Amino acid sequence: DDAFCLGGQTFNSRLLTGTGKFASREIIAPMLEGCGSEMITVALRRVDGDAGAKNILSYIPKGVTLLPNTSGARTAEEAVRIARIARAAGCGDFIKIEVITEMKYLMPDNYETLNATKTLAAEGFKVLPYIMPDLTLAHRLQDAGAAAVMPLGSPIGSNRGIKMEEMIRIIIESMDIPVIVDAGIGRPSQAAQAMEMGADAVLVNTAIATSADPVMAARAFAMGVAAGRMAFCADMAAQTNQAQASSPLTGFLRETA
Amino acid sequence: DDAFCLGGQTFNSRLLTGTGKFASREIIAPMLEGCGSEMITVALRRVDGDAGAKNILSYIPKGVTLLPNTSGARTAEEAVRIARIARAAGCGDFIKIEVITEMKYLMPDNYETLNATKTLAAEGFKVLPYIMPDLTLAHRLQDAGAAAVMPLGSPIGSNRGIKMEEMIRIIIESMDIPVIVDAGIGRPSQAAQAMEMGADAVLVNTAIATSADPVMAARAFAMGVAAGRMAFCADMAAQTNQAQASSPLTGFLRETA
Amino acid sequence: DDAFCLGGQTFNSRLLTGTGKFASREIIAPMLEGCGSEMITVALRRVDGDAGAKNILSYIPKGVTLLPNTSGARTAEEAVRIARIARAAGCGDFIKIEVITEMKYLMPDNYETLNATKTLAAEGFKVLPYIMPDLTLAHRLQDAGAAAVMPLGSPIGSNRGIKMEEMIRIIIESMDIPVIVDAGIGRPSQAAQAMEMGADAVLVNTAIATSADPVMAARAFAMGVAAGRMAFCADMAAQTNQAQASSPLTGFLRETA
Amino acid sequence: DDAFCLGGQTFNSRLLTGTGKFASREIIAPMLEGCGSEMITVALRRVDGDAGAKNILSYIPKGVTLLPNTSGARTAEEAVRIARIARAAGCGDFIKIEVITEMKYLMPDNYETLNATKTLAAEGFKVLPYIMPDLTLAHRLQDAGAAAVMPLGSPIGSNRGIKMEEMIRIIIESMDIPVIVDAGIGRPSQAAQAMEMGADAVLVNTAIATSADPVMAARAFAMGVAAGRMAFCADMAAQTNQAQASSPLTGFLRETA
Repeated sequence: DDAFCLGGQTFNSRLLTGTGKFASREIIAPMLEGCGSEMITVALRRVDGDAGAKNILSYIPKGVTLLPNTSGARTAEEAVRIARIARAAGCGDFIKIEVITEMKYLMPDNYETLNATKTLAAEGFKVLPYIMPDLTLAHRLQDAGAAAVMPLGSPIGSNRGIKMEEMIRIIIESMDIPVIVDAGIGRPSQAAQAMEMGADAVLVNTAIATSADPVMAARAFAMGVAAGRMAFCADMAAQTNQAQASSPLTGFLRETA
Repeated sequence: DDAFCLGGQTFNSRLLTGTGKFASREIIAPMLEGCGSEMITVALRRVDGDAGAKNILSYIPKGVTLLPNTSGARTAEEAVRIARIARAAGCGDFIKIEVITEMKYLMPDNYETLNATKTLAAEGFKVLPYIMPDLTLAHRLQDAGAAAVMPLGSPIGSNRGIKMEEMIRIIIESMDIPVIVDAGIGRPSQAAQAMEMGADAVLVNTAIATSADPVMAARAFAMGVAAGRMAFCADMAAQTNQAQASSPLTGFLRETA
Repeated sequence: DDAFCLGGQTFNSRLLTGTGKFASREIIAPMLEGCGSEMITVALRRVDGDAGAKNILSYIPKGVTLLPNTSGARTAEEAVRIARIARAAGCGDFIKIEVITEMKYLMPDNYETLNATKTLAAEGFKVLPYIMPDLTLAHRLQDAGAAAVMPLGSPIGSNRGIKMEEMIRIIIESMDIPVIVDAGIGRPSQAAQAMEMGADAVLVNTAIATSADPVMAARAFAMGVAAGRMAFCADMAAQTNQAQASSPLTGFLRETA
Repeated sequence: DDAFCLGGQTFNSRLLTGTGKFASREIIAPMLEGCGSEMITVALRRVDGDAGAKNILSYIPKGVTLLPNTSGARTAEEAVRIARIARAAGCGDFIKIEVITEMKYLMPDNYETLNATKTLAAEGFKVLPYIMPDLTLAHRLQDAGAAAVMPLGSPIGSNRGIKMEEMIRIIIESMDIPVIVDAGIGRPSQAAQAMEMGADAVLVNTAIATSADPVMAARAFAMGVAAGRMAFCADMAAQTNQAQASSPLTGFLRETA
């Protein structure tokens, strides 16, 4: 009854996962099963792979929705072409736009991403643009028909958490479409924090894939996401500057002695 | 297989709860059931109550371990007397030492708390002192026979989280006995953070009791605690300053076009 | 000998100020004198003002460089027109591009700002674009001929400091042109922090103008800027996780007693 | 007119410095002159030194008040003995109590420090106890006649800044005697922050002494301290969650076009 609706499809899990960086692809299926993630991102390059190599898609259980990404694209045009190839290859209508032109910190290129989103949304794709948190751009993406926005929490793979908290909080407050925090989430506490802030979902890949025990790590993130979501729904009290006793402090010993 | 051993007793849950501030005591039992907490703190004042009023203990399900606290004590001597009364009243051997002499921020009095701990540990109590985070004092409490130390995260009831992170981290690293973060934890993400830092358990009362839905809030905290503990056990990667791609970035379109 | 070069001009002060929000315009001159700021931003609207009203420019001492801004612009085209009017009015070649289309948090519109920068830099303006921190965009602005970039620290007028620290740090590290932190700096400590991070300058307006004593506040910010810059130049040691005694700890009393 | 009164003596500078860790003692005098510090801490061990070696005191200009410390003491008794020796040796009435029994993080021992303070204050010393931030203890030290309290910002020599902010803020708010933040301050911005929080002074040693240019670093800290103090006195506006424009945003171009 707290389902998450994205691109017209309903999900029970608010944890999106990824296929990159796993020591072995055999871990992907138990990882997904353990954490209940219902949507997983995959790079098209991995989809078509080399001849002879087993396709990455064969490691993903039925029932898990694919979120192909445009990793490797450096322009809107390239992203559009990758998206079309992915759909033609049977990967479905969802597409995560990743356009990266800055190669040290791997920051998303908001400008090219907006252009790709305009084109692909008009072609009926369910577009999830991965962006540098920027409120004005997020409004434009929403107007262009994006199914959600995916602001980064901190540089990808850094495990640094929600360093862009100020801006993500403002984006969450301002958007009508879902906000999915993507990149930089390295601990379940950080995933919980994103959900407590009101994010609709989070995407975690590196922190799970590089953990000593990816299946346990994925379960931990799923629990962190669920905990944060429940806290958001339970409407917890605000922070105060003042202490408030939880036990009675009037000293009965003094009174009765 | 990741049980938590405290005072010679084994617990599956690492979430300790409290009985204060609930709008209705009828909520305590479903709250405990929902979150699986196996230890709950109770003020002795509430235990003996007024004649005619139903005793607080009657609201706590069998199987949940009582942690009577010395709330209201302003000296070591008073704390010792409350502890003895609690044990004589059948509340068991566990005792949470709370001695507060500073009435604005309700900060624990480390000096009196150490003295009470010495006396009560020598009398066979399983002593859990609630303290201002102080590494030297924590060593003394350990030497005095405390079963654990309970440093505060931030002022009680403030929901401000682990504001004393620096010192709590050092205490966790240095202690042989369990460290239970108590006071100030207002969100599941903060509970998860404490566990990721290596705390053995957390105690949450105000944030659960004052939530719009205490049963859901308690479950959220239980999941946060479990998520943080699993992350700690899964040995997640450290933070880095550098971005690391999770998808391949070499642009296959450029190569093949 | 640590002069700050901006747009081909050399400045001794790394504190830029503004003309907005002062209770009385008479304070601007002593404010500037007290803090030594050599560049001040002014909205064109205030420049031409109402007929009969004294022009804002008459309150600014000779020798202080004007930085007219394009406040009020909602498109690149409007910003370009304002810039041209300002130059024609004798305000000089410097122009701060402010294009804001999101009216709740008053966030800069990076897209329109880039377009205005391209046009104005080509016309010989010394362009200082005020932006949402975004590394990819900052590179584009540099390529377009901007004289500097002005990433915001936090929402304008919020006094919240360097909330975008992660991204500003990366921009500072990556740019060849000066980086001036603008908006949100509410305390001298925050101005010092920006300088310690390696920013070339900061712009402070609201925190000075709304202080109970703007002249003293401006001096405080000037000192904070200078302190942070000197710390940056003095190459201070990094943070460590380990304590290091500054006094000898071997107990001579024990040895000699 | 904003003088700092400590132990009945008046100081113009709110930056206390130290003599430890300098590459050469010859730097101490220009360091003091450059930053205007009027009080410097010195370990007694360094005072009496080895026969033949030049006494550390000979490097400290006349007019600078000595603050001998009890570094090396592991008990109150040892601290008391060192203090008496220091006074007998002509170092004056000021004494900084440092009792450290925990040798990894070099945390002050609040319990022994309180005992030493009681004894020495009764003997007419002007006692400055270096403590783990603890509000209850700070009240006891004030009651015992301490001239000030010196809570640590973070572990000594770590350059980590005001990690204990929450507790230091509460101590500042609650004390009648001066509060001097000591240990861990590694940047001028952190010194400014302490002063903005309302601290009366800060003590900086390691960050100055280990800088590539100690004289410039000391000046930078002095400016940071002065900036923070002025900001405190100028009564700056509080942080807000809302943006507030500093320039007029009504688009005059639209109106007039």
